[in-house]
Amino acid sequence: MDKKSFASDNYSGVDPEIMNALIKCNIGHAKAYGEDRYTKKAIEKFKEIFGSDIYVDFLYNGTGANTVALAAMTESFHSVICPEQAHINTYEVGAPTKFTGCSMVGIKACDVGGKLKVERVRDYLKISMGSMHHSQPRVISITQPTEIGAVYTLKEIKEIADFAHENDLLFHIDGARIFNAADSLNVGFKEMTKDLGVDVLSFGGTKNGMMFGEAVIFFNTELAKNVTYRKKQCTQLNSKMRYIAAQFIALLENELGLKNARQSNNMAKLLAESVADIPGVKMTNKVEANTVYAILPKEIIPILQEKYFFYVWDVVRSEVRWVTSFDITKEDVFDFAQQMRKILTKKQKAA
Amino acid sequence: MDKKSFASDNYSGVDPEIMNALIKCNIGHAKAYGEDRYTKKAIEKFKEIFGSDIYVDFLYNGTGANTVALAAMTESFHSVICPEQAHINTYEVGAPTKFTGCSMVGIKACDVGGKLKVERVRDYLKISMGSMHHSQPRVISITQPTEIGAVYTLKEIKEIADFAHENDLLFHIDGARIFNAADSLNVGFKEMTKDLGVDVLSFGGTKNGMMFGEAVIFFNTELAKNVTYRKKQCTQLNSKMRYIAAQFIALLENELGLKNARQSNNMAKLLAESVADIPGVKMTNKVEANTVYAILPKEIIPILQEKYFFYVWDVVRSEVRWVTSFDITKEDVFDFAQQMRKILTKKQKAA
Amino acid sequence: MDKKSFASDNYSGVDPEIMNALIKCNIGHAKAYGEDRYTKKAIEKFKEIFGSDIYVDFLYNGTGANTVALAAMTESFHSVICPEQAHINTYEVGAPTKFTGCSMVGIKACDVGGKLKVERVRDYLKISMGSMHHSQPRVISITQPTEIGAVYTLKEIKEIADFAHENDLLFHIDGARIFNAADSLNVGFKEMTKDLGVDVLSFGGTKNGMMFGEAVIFFNTELAKNVTYRKKQCTQLNSKMRYIAAQFIALLENELGLKNARQSNNMAKLLAESVADIPGVKMTNKVEANTVYAILPKEIIPILQEKYFFYVWDVVRSEVRWVTSFDITKEDVFDFAQQMRKILTKKQKAA
Amino acid sequence: MDKKSFASDNYSGVDPEIMNALIKCNIGHAKAYGEDRYTKKAIEKFKEIFGSDIYVDFLYNGTGANTVALAAMTESFHSVICPEQAHINTYEVGAPTKFTGCSMVGIKACDVGGKLKVERVRDYLKISMGSMHHSQPRVISITQPTEIGAVYTLKEIKEIADFAHENDLLFHIDGARIFNAADSLNVGFKEMTKDLGVDVLSFGGTKNGMMFGEAVIFFNTELAKNVTYRKKQCTQLNSKMRYIAAQFIALLENELGLKNARQSNNMAKLLAESVADIPGVKMTNKVEANTVYAILPKEIIPILQEKYFFYVWDVVRSEVRWVTSFDITKEDVFDFAQQMRKILTKKQKAA
Repeated sequence: MDKKSFASDNYSGVDPEIMNALIKCNIGHAKAYGEDRYTKKAIEKFKEIFGSDIYVDFLYNGTGANTVALAAMTESFHSVICPEQAHINTYEVGAPTKFTGCSMVGIKACDVGGKLKVERVRDYLKISMGSMHHSQPRVISITQPTEIGAVYTLKEIKEIADFAHENDLLFHIDGARIFNAADSLNVGFKEMTKDLGVDVLSFGGTKNGMMFGEAVIFFNTELAKNVTYRKKQCTQLNSKMRYIAAQFIALLENELGLKNARQSNNMAKLLAESVADIPGVKMTNKVEANTVYAILPKEIIPILQEKYFFYVWDVVRSEVRWVTSFDITKEDVFDFAQQMRKILTKKQKAA
Repeated sequence: MDKKSFASDNYSGVDPEIMNALIKCNIGHAKAYGEDRYTKKAIEKFKEIFGSDIYVDFLYNGTGANTVALAAMTESFHSVICPEQAHINTYEVGAPTKFTGCSMVGIKACDVGGKLKVERVRDYLKISMGSMHHSQPRVISITQPTEIGAVYTLKEIKEIADFAHENDLLFHIDGARIFNAADSLNVGFKEMTKDLGVDVLSFGGTKNGMMFGEAVIFFNTELAKNVTYRKKQCTQLNSKMRYIAAQFIALLENELGLKNARQSNNMAKLLAESVADIPGVKMTNKVEANTVYAILPKEIIPILQEKYFFYVWDVVRSEVRWVTSFDITKEDVFDFAQQMRKILTKKQKAA
Repeated sequence: MDKKSFASDNYSGVDPEIMNALIKCNIGHAKAYGEDRYTKKAIEKFKEIFGSDIYVDFLYNGTGANTVALAAMTESFHSVICPEQAHINTYEVGAPTKFTGCSMVGIKACDVGGKLKVERVRDYLKISMGSMHHSQPRVISITQPTEIGAVYTLKEIKEIADFAHENDLLFHIDGARIFNAADSLNVGFKEMTKDLGVDVLSFGGTKNGMMFGEAVIFFNTELAKNVTYRKKQCTQLNSKMRYIAAQFIALLENELGLKNARQSNNMAKLLAESVADIPGVKMTNKVEANTVYAILPKEIIPILQEKYFFYVWDVVRSEVRWVTSFDITKEDVFDFAQQMRKILTKKQKAA
Repeated sequence: MDKKSFASDNYSGVDPEIMNALIKCNIGHAKAYGEDRYTKKAIEKFKEIFGSDIYVDFLYNGTGANTVALAAMTESFHSVICPEQAHINTYEVGAPTKFTGCSMVGIKACDVGGKLKVERVRDYLKISMGSMHHSQPRVISITQPTEIGAVYTLKEIKEIADFAHENDLLFHIDGARIFNAADSLNVGFKEMTKDLGVDVLSFGGTKNGMMFGEAVIFFNTELAKNVTYRKKQCTQLNSKMRYIAAQFIALLENELGLKNARQSNNMAKLLAESVADIPGVKMTNKVEANTVYAILPKEIIPILQEKYFFYVWDVVRSEVRWVTSFDITKEDVFDFAQQMRKILTKKQKAA
């Protein structure tokens, strides 16, 4: 019970340093709704990273961050262009669509990595832009890393940003796992977002060791004017805000967040290396962040899930997904790999 | 800095026992999105209180709980009837209206206490029910205690419930401070809600010592069928759910929540008694829960706010609101009352 | 069957000159969706009246015109301030609320005439403007003439316009019966709207002899930029637009619309004069447009309705509403008055 | 000016018999909002066709009919499955999405004809049905004929209906050109919809000779309970309803609508036959209704458009669309074909 898993970075708990920060800030009264000193300090932390010409706000979760971000960038007759598999398009029960009124336009992505291809966006603009019968394209939104764990290069981000702005579009990044991308690219947050022309960034905390809480960062501060009201109307205004703020302070101090991401990224690579040569295992993605995909013999999956839980990604192909959380250690990986090897070798001998 | 206040029960922090529960549940991995064992146990706790024929779910905050509750009770052509001053009508930037599409119909409430009057609802039904041009009345929603701290008696709740059902309406209670009402009425939660005919209850935790988290409880379980999807679409699905569940378990165990509410209710009464005879102070409500209203000389308000912060409720009348959180002690109240007495006596002598 | 009534200006048919215009424009093909020459000409007609610095568009009905107008003036966290009885607030099944996401804030109006009082709006602004928990006031909307047939004077309109702009609000007029107001005030359309500071006007046609069709006129043309898309998203884009345009051309040519309104206004006055002295009839409004309100003995209402149909306005008070359409003649009024006199006199004798 | 075109069936005017019906019903007063005798008769006409166990209502336009139909079939957490190119998905500025809150899920259709493939829907159900993160599939919606003029056979409709109901989904048909499909299939309306298991049908009038007006027909009458309120909230309640009803009566009497559709279908076939052998013209669809697609040399398109206007469908492929309205005659087709032949022959000689 409560044992570790390779299921999701939502299965892991709260980083001990973050829990400590929560305990420490639990003294006396603090102003509600973000007017407390912790929130001020957390904002300062973000400004140290991105420069002072930004607007930051804090929300409960990633769906909330994406929804409020997109609401600030659109009117209801607009459309939001994203890869077909984008979280905002498929995995949030239509929350962004419901709140903004906009159509999410899923563009067929690259077969490998699930990245957005600018040429396909261009085709879509041709048929829709300025036509009175079509939702008007307004935002390009990508997930970094993508839903299947690929990391856009700086050049790729820049290309999308430039394309967006040339076409009078805004550019949003869903960074639920932005720490993993930063570690993977080995550059600063600012270099990989603001400096390339990103307008708004959903900045994830929960999947990297926080209890709850995400930030939304506006580099295009014109868009941020009414976020306070949008946030409340979207049910995302946290009353005792100090408890999100204190977590972010801890995550950004001493590079805790980056260390966590490095650990999870490294463990993903280690896992991939450790199981790649096991007979019957076929790796299906290039590991660039903290998710590993592989095809396994169907019948061993439930046996393996009892050791360490994980999800089947594609039933038809018998493809599974392993996510390495920040708290996964070498020992966990080796143990998991060893068990897999044992089970599969036994199976092969039996055959 | 971080000193106590009489500003709001959102200013107070997390009850130490609840913080302890958070620390204790922070071990290993747990299934995400509410499929963990803490969530199961929290649901069991609620079923012990209300019976097993209920549906419970957990959300981030009160606006979310109200919005999801009302979404489950309505279609967009419906209206929700509530007292004009109801939180859902005035204080949530229209979140319930935006998400449900329904009109909130604010009915002028009782002058004292802000309670809903059934006769006025009846008049509204006459002009709207069945008319193709009017939103169709579907829900009566009240806040218990009311926005100005009055507590509906069991008889009053029953009367509204009966009226609602006779008129084919559903009945929702916004119980952001339901613990305070329970202490004030000195009856069980079940007796004051489910047994009287309430259909859905927003059950508050944050204002009573939790870090974040509210429950929504469906006594009319037919309405609960799709809450899972509604919750996610409303951006209210918490991924690491164990951290809300563990808090509720602590709040419900050993009557912690009731003890907290008793403390805050008692301190409100004590505060009212301690300041009522101070020259220049005019009490303006009957204290039934944890809020105290009084008219003060305008010029002493800022001086007093520097001692203990609180909000002005009505600028024109120079009326202030004092909220006593669960962590307010007799010493706090006596000190506050003494300071007030000193300032006002000095002022009077000067005059 | 098909006999005339005093029920509503939606009961009357199409003015013969307008029907003629429909027949005449029914030749050959015309570009769809408003790119035809009739639409161009109708726009020109409106520019002759209001000046060329306006934006005009055509929609199916009044609810559509109001909804699209308000959508162009708001974002979803805004509120629209209007008299409690405003059509947009009570009589459109919440269409503007649903489409804009905004709260309609009904302000208690003057007891007589139902006009908006600026002082009450000021009070509302004090509690809501800039508060992160409240929908942000953005638009004042009034109906001219009001829902109970009173006509705002130029001075009253100007006062509201000035108040709105001083408070950074926009000003919308629902002019479903704007022709009746123009006749009543005996001034030009421009003088009573644009010149006083109105930002957007819903300009009614259907209630004044058209088959269907309303215009929405933006004096604040900044707001009109995306009306094309909003209109379609609101299901209000008419494909064969020439048939709305041709009707408006006819209505505006040779002052047909004004003549119709004058007739209906005059008949309302005549009706009021003709029945005021009938024993048992108590007039309850000052007739300024084409609606007359009176209290009648309850039992004679159904008898009278069989002669000429009309609606009971307030069951409790036994108050009825008579609307005089453009096609009501002196003979109709005299006949109706005579029948009423006969029935009531007989009744009195019997008593 | 006002000459005929092959642009769209929205370019053609009103059928003379329908205009006659409008003139004839323009006598005296009629109850508003659909309580008049014309509306009753129009409903009767539809019941003669479909049986008495249906619910019919009348709206302004096709976007309105689709939006109200889908609103009656869904809650906001649902998704509507349709071919990628469906009008509701691409061509209505997101009106159905905005009003229902649902995601439109565009499934890649057959390459030829644009019909929905059930197998692809099945794949989508596998990943979404019952998952708490996905919008829940609720409706399959197809357009008959498809957006590119193909007509589903009875067998194909039946297959989709059965699949839908086996999977607990509802089935909607957007029949903006349902008359053309009926003529093409040469069966009754009932046989091609209700008898096969269709739940709700948008029944088009405007594209087949009406001035404005569409019907929505519920075969699943459970879904129709609140259409009255939805219609008004969707801004689709027509006040002077007799003028839509009278048009539908005329369209359904003496098979006027079918005659019109037969004419336009036949003219489409004739056009295709008349131009197929012109050098440089490449036909690209099988003509089953009233639209013809062909690839033309880019440079002759503008020359030809001056003779008879039509739209370019796909700029890249230089593919054009010709729509034959009910008022297109053999002479029009022959003249158009002849001009095309002349221009292209001349061009070829020059080359």
